[in-house]
Amino acid sequence: MLAHRLIERKRDGARIEPGEWRALALAYAKGHVPDYQMAALLMACFLRGLDRSETSALTEAMLLSGDRLDLSHINRPRVDKHSTGGVGDKVSLILAPMVASVGVAVPMMSGRSLGHTGGTLDKLESIPGFRTDLSLADAQRQIEEIGCAMMGQTPEIAPADKKMYALRDATATVESIPLIASSIMSKKLAEDLTGLVFDMKRGSGAFLPELDRVLELAEVMIRLGADHGCPCVALVTAMDRPLGRACGNALEVEEAIAALKGEGPADLMSVTYALGAEMLVLAGVADDNNAARRELEKAIGTGRAAERFQRIIEAQGGNPGVVDDPATMPQAAECEIFPAPRRGFVARIEPRPIGRGIIEMGGGRTRVEDSADPSVGFVITARPGDWIEAGEPLATIFARDRAGIATGRQALRTAIVVADEAEPPLPLISHRVTIRGAEAYPSE
Amino acid sequence: MLAHRLIERKRDGARIEPGEWRALALAYAKGHVPDYQMAALLMACFLRGLDRSETSALTEAMLLSGDRLDLSHINRPRVDKHSTGGVGDKVSLILAPMVASVGVAVPMMSGRSLGHTGGTLDKLESIPGFRTDLSLADAQRQIEEIGCAMMGQTPEIAPADKKMYALRDATATVESIPLIASSIMSKKLAEDLTGLVFDMKRGSGAFLPELDRVLELAEVMIRLGADHGCPCVALVTAMDRPLGRACGNALEVEEAIAALKGEGPADLMSVTYALGAEMLVLAGVADDNNAARRELEKAIGTGRAAERFQRIIEAQGGNPGVVDDPATMPQAAECEIFPAPRRGFVARIEPRPIGRGIIEMGGGRTRVEDSADPSVGFVITARPGDWIEAGEPLATIFARDRAGIATGRQALRTAIVVADEAEPPLPLISHRVTIRGAEAYPSE
Repeated sequence: MLAHRLIERKRDGARIEPGEWRALALAYAKGHVPDYQMAALLMACFLRGLDRSETSALTEAMLLSGDRLDLSHINRPRVDKHSTGGVGDKVSLILAPMVASVGVAVPMMSGRSLGHTGGTLDKLESIPGFRTDLSLADAQRQIEEIGCAMMGQTPEIAPADKKMYALRDATATVESIPLIASSIMSKKLAEDLTGLVFDMKRGSGAFLPELDRVLELAEVMIRLGADHGCPCVALVTAMDRPLGRACGNALEVEEAIAALKGEGPADLMSVTYALGAEMLVLAGVADDNNAARRELEKAIGTGRAAERFQRIIEAQGGNPGVVDDPATMPQAAECEIFPAPRRGFVARIEPRPIGRGIIEMGGGRTRVEDSADPSVGFVITARPGDWIEAGEPLATIFARDRAGIATGRQALRTAIVVADEAEPPLPLISHRVTIRGAEAYPSE
Repeated sequence: MLAHRLIERKRDGARIEPGEWRALALAYAKGHVPDYQMAALLMACFLRGLDRSETSALTEAMLLSGDRLDLSHINRPRVDKHSTGGVGDKVSLILAPMVASVGVAVPMMSGRSLGHTGGTLDKLESIPGFRTDLSLADAQRQIEEIGCAMMGQTPEIAPADKKMYALRDATATVESIPLIASSIMSKKLAEDLTGLVFDMKRGSGAFLPELDRVLELAEVMIRLGADHGCPCVALVTAMDRPLGRACGNALEVEEAIAALKGEGPADLMSVTYALGAEMLVLAGVADDNNAARRELEKAIGTGRAAERFQRIIEAQGGNPGVVDDPATMPQAAECEIFPAPRRGFVARIEPRPIGRGIIEMGGGRTRVEDSADPSVGFVITARPGDWIEAGEPLATIFARDRAGIATGRQALRTAIVVADEAEPPLPLISHRVTIRGAEAYPSE
């Protein structure tokens, strides 16, 4: 009867108390509250909202429904990054080893691809042999030894959130800021962090396209972090075009490896350095942004970051040889240049048709259970604002077969808009949000 | 994916089209839409509302999810009454045989007790041998032969509603006027009626206590009837005190039998005649209310109504001897007079503690699966407004044992409020509602 009373209360716009959220999350995780009651409650939460203390209590309740990493014996700051997800976003693959290589522990728990956006786990698993299903004990040991583990959410982490997220997905209750915030933070707080940085994507390819909602979500998550003793900073970055050039699991790993060797595309490097600098400052290993950047550039320049990635790959069962020879990554059977259909400006490169195109080419999943072909995707060399001549190469399509090439061509035709005038893209990094609020990010 | 899209639509305050409601109800009845999706949709409906055409489409969709009575071969008007439920409400037991005895077919499908309110099926089943689980074919045959069947909702009737009602009960989505209206009407329209009368209870013992919500529900149901070719009229009656004197299944049957013999309490007879007169006018067998009343008084006076009840009991396997000798009804082992605790006015007789008292004494069900002792209950002779002396008998308690008597005494202490001043009770019948709107009911 607890659930019934709480549904009724939230339905009528009233509060649910912290102890009630805890009892409910636990009962739900154990299967004592049926999905249909939780579904009704989630819809009431979606439409009536949760106040700050409710969001905090729900987060904590989901956190406490499971285990957490225990990294208290590690004598290093522990900082992670969370991205709200996008197309071509391989930042984690560069950032985790780079930051770990300068003495900050990075206990990184990531997700899978969902919808048109990619997932770090799927990217990592395109490295032959790489395992992301580490146990908590394995992860703790690995973080102690090499300062970083890159893994999925284990079954012990926030089981109430895991169950509730699947239910939200089926009941059209995903896009609620307090529900999104508590879901993300219940997992991140289980990483036993001393700091957390958010990459908040905005623009047509982002999960939440509008800036005001992005800032609201950032502010709610930053407050949740503060409530639980984990200082957070967020950067708002552009997802009105893919980040970097490569889109597709194995192609993105190759680009990340290039970036770790100092050969990454400018936009990808800018975002990665900016996020990494925030992590270093939060960790207290650098005094300010400029000092932090210099540290990180040194980690790349000396090869220490790339070498750390090799150690992570090796520790997680993968072939570390991919770092020296990216050609050992899975390669697509077919590839084809995509030429400019006309002369003009590249007005837009829409992330959604690119993400969906990769799924249609067999390179993504429409359901969590699906298996994906890691080799397919695009390398898009054109950038918004470029002047191009008809026939000039804009991208390369990588596919399993000729049909896949045709699918990819169709996706690029939709995604890459060539026009007589250039359209101003979103600033690559537009805002920095802390517990004191949002401010404009200084342009480079 | 249909369900997900519709949840999203209703969540955002938009309409669901008639064809979509039909597809959804059918899919839900067949188990192709899971309860958790329907629960989320119901909460969205509860909070966002349904417009007139949506309510109509949902009603029709639930109706079409199952079978219906086919009474088209009967050359008589077919009229039923629906009550929103109360304590001591045995009107159906008198009304159905009385109206049937003047040439109107009454295909009456009733419900069970729920919460503090009684249910006609439970009352009927207190008659030894009486079966309410008629098949549609049995009911059709019986209505043809004796003009009336008093039965439960068969599994074939509106299965989508049956499933949805159970889900609403578990998910705090019951008290929504469009959902209530479509649930009631999907079952009533399956009775193949030519007219329908509502007894809309108001006051502290009613399911919806406030007059404005009662009138709103009546108006929605009347419109639904009109949309489906079934003219409806509603009377708003008082449920701030029990109707009649008897409360408890077998006791109410005994009072109904007395009423059929012309010996019912005045309030019970007034409400029964008023509803019956509306049924006769709707059926076209009486020109106006006065003519209809005379017909019904004749049916009682000549014994035709009581004799029709005997035939119904006999046809449904019960002992028709109860009509001549009500002492053959189940009798309580213990009974005790409840005396006035002090002198003063009977200020109030609250229906809810009486209904709950009967449940606690073992005479009702807290879950649909429970079995109930039909003999327990109260006969309350005091009426609101009576002047009483301390020690004067106000009621008789009927119980299984001494513990039951003590429980009943406690319930009456809460229910019967004696004070220095009388409180004006609600008018017995306050409004008459038709498709043209609500008007005051003429006082007698």
